[in-house]
Amino acid sequence: MRILIIHISNLSLRNFRNYQNLDINLPDKVTLLMGNNGQGKSNFLEAIYMLSVAKSYRGNTERDLITEGSVNGLSYSKIACDIQLQEKSTKLEIHYQCEPFDNKDGFVAQKFIKINGIPKRASDFVGNLNSVLFSVAELDLVFGTPSSRRRYLNILISQIDKIYLKNLLDFQKINSQRNSLLKLIREGNSQDNELSYWDSQSAKLATDLIIKRVEILENLSNLSNPIHKEMSNLKENMYCSYLPSTKEIYPMNPEKCFDFISSQLISNRSRDISAGTTSIGPHRDDFQIFINDLDSHRFSSRGQARTAVLALKFAEAEILKRSRNTTPILLLDDLLSELDLERREQILDMTTMFDQSIITTAEPEIISQSFKNQSNLLEINHGEISEKKT
Amino acid sequence: MRILIIHISNLSLRNFRNYQNLDINLPDKVTLLMGNNGQGKSNFLEAIYMLSVAKSYRGNTERDLITEGSVNGLSYSKIACDIQLQEKSTKLEIHYQCEPFDNKDGFVAQKFIKINGIPKRASDFVGNLNSVLFSVAELDLVFGTPSSRRRYLNILISQIDKIYLKNLLDFQKINSQRNSLLKLIREGNSQDNELSYWDSQSAKLATDLIIKRVEILENLSNLSNPIHKEMSNLKENMYCSYLPSTKEIYPMNPEKCFDFISSQLISNRSRDISAGTTSIGPHRDDFQIFINDLDSHRFSSRGQARTAVLALKFAEAEILKRSRNTTPILLLDDLLSELDLERREQILDMTTMFDQSIITTAEPEIISQSFKNQSNLLEINHGEISEKKT
Repeated sequence: MRILIIHISNLSLRNFRNYQNLDINLPDKVTLLMGNNGQGKSNFLEAIYMLSVAKSYRGNTERDLITEGSVNGLSYSKIACDIQLQEKSTKLEIHYQCEPFDNKDGFVAQKFIKINGIPKRASDFVGNLNSVLFSVAELDLVFGTPSSRRRYLNILISQIDKIYLKNLLDFQKINSQRNSLLKLIREGNSQDNELSYWDSQSAKLATDLIIKRVEILENLSNLSNPIHKEMSNLKENMYCSYLPSTKEIYPMNPEKCFDFISSQLISNRSRDISAGTTSIGPHRDDFQIFINDLDSHRFSSRGQARTAVLALKFAEAEILKRSRNTTPILLLDDLLSELDLERREQILDMTTMFDQSIITTAEPEIISQSFKNQSNLLEINHGEISEKKT
Repeated sequence: MRILIIHISNLSLRNFRNYQNLDINLPDKVTLLMGNNGQGKSNFLEAIYMLSVAKSYRGNTERDLITEGSVNGLSYSKIACDIQLQEKSTKLEIHYQCEPFDNKDGFVAQKFIKINGIPKRASDFVGNLNSVLFSVAELDLVFGTPSSRRRYLNILISQIDKIYLKNLLDFQKINSQRNSLLKLIREGNSQDNELSYWDSQSAKLATDLIIKRVEILENLSNLSNPIHKEMSNLKENMYCSYLPSTKEIYPMNPEKCFDFISSQLISNRSRDISAGTTSIGPHRDDFQIFINDLDSHRFSSRGQARTAVLALKFAEAEILKRSRNTTPILLLDDLLSELDLERREQILDMTTMFDQSIITTAEPEIISQSFKNQSNLLEINHGEISEKKT
């Protein structure tokens, strides 16, 4: 398999968060974006990430990313880039058209997506540019709730397996229908035996989801362990382990897994009826990250968690690369903070293996001069970016 | 009012997290604890914080803080310190006695608390040593849920006002009784008019809680604004604003506030009955932190959020100082990460105003030599602490 080389050659922003009008060329390899707090470093990475997935990763509402000026005056916002895949150039654009509206913000925004000037749907847009983003929010993988870890697996697998996404949506539908039936039975308006059909539907999809998840988690675990070892200078051993809601491990043979889930659904039936929800299945599963055999959720420090999540992100990049034939763009949002010198050096070393990576920091003094010498250095001040000489 | 000078002169740990046996003298003024990730920096501050509040601030279970060795061999853990209040010395101790038990961890731990060797209850223990802790988890004040902000106000006010704590517990009880009644009415087993009694009880306590909260938040806002201005080098303006669940501001006159809440309870009655819960009141209120007139929850960067929370912590220290006659010990857990140079310098400057502060970092190179020269420098390696020469 031949890995194709891809990079963003130009990024253009208009009325996006604190950027009024940015048009900047980006080389391949490493770009370091340095600047004080609150100048727009994360917004820069967010824009690139949006061009990968056609939506923002942060905030509840996309309205927040449109600057006020655009509403009162210019009436639109834009995020666009040119990507170079080998010799071929492609233009990706996301436009927001704003109109005054009688709500709290005073406007509504409509989103338009284009590839090379031609309008597209979000689902056609996704996949042109792959990127892996590490921001501090990702520490939720260690310290957050089981649902954030499930979400992580679901998004990663959906990116490389469209059938998984379909099964996931079907499972959610069937599970909510089963739950409605459980409530009806509780209230005496339905019979226990009506559950059999839903149990078998649910167990079938659950089997597909769980087998896929365990498989990818094993992949992540195997790929991240050596990366993590290197980042912690061979000191720490990391692995991931799937944590079933059944408290017993799932059999990895599909038929046996199906039988196991089916029997669990039956043995938990009376509890599920009184609760009105299904207590076991992939929607209640979790996974654990172990560092030196200790559950990181309970025992790891912030710096250890950062290193573990970063190793997972690098492993994720490797999985995406294998399935998509291109190395994703690496986006590291202030990831060097909270890390000791050894870990920082190891991580900076690894970034050079990517075709393109963009690293932000408010602490430029923690990056070695030799690394700076090899990088494209940018400085940011109130949404204005300028080149910086070493 | 004369402010008394207090500091911890000695800290002693036995089988506490990654510390097997630590016994260290601490001077007043600033101590810098430097070390790589995962060596025990946060655990050190956690121990001191535990001696202030008689329980841990992190983890769901206190079992996690006992090292395994203590269970198999030594069978107990200890956290102790000597504090110097002017000329007077006091010994604070927390002991955990472990016994083998048939659970997941294989043991149970019982907690004993002593002052100068005499067994005490937790409520008598709290208040001997005051400390203000800033760890990254505190960023939940900006990025977290309304419940984390309510919890922050509740804890702060409870520390300085015992009546508030009593009112809060009473309100929670009454609110849950009102909710049960709402459900009974929904199911046709009670009448609307039975709510009147609970409405008036609920409104009375709600009034007390809300007036106190608005008052302390105004205090916090007024005290934190100039601190924040200084930390951001006069560039940013910060203030806090109480956000009532009623969407309308509460009148600050107690009688008018009571009338307002009572009328709101009535006008929301039918909605509350169908939901089975009370939709307005202090248990649903929130507060907002504004930076340059933008809601920080939606618009601030990580660095800005750190600065805002830090300003609140300094304001909190000032409030505690005024109410308790002693300056609290300042505990800053890796707080300088993610911050730009200007902000770091300003914050380090402010720490010198405390009688004692303990600052941890994995990035010693971001701290200026002149600050290091004025500080007690400690180095940590696998739970072993040694003095470091500048």
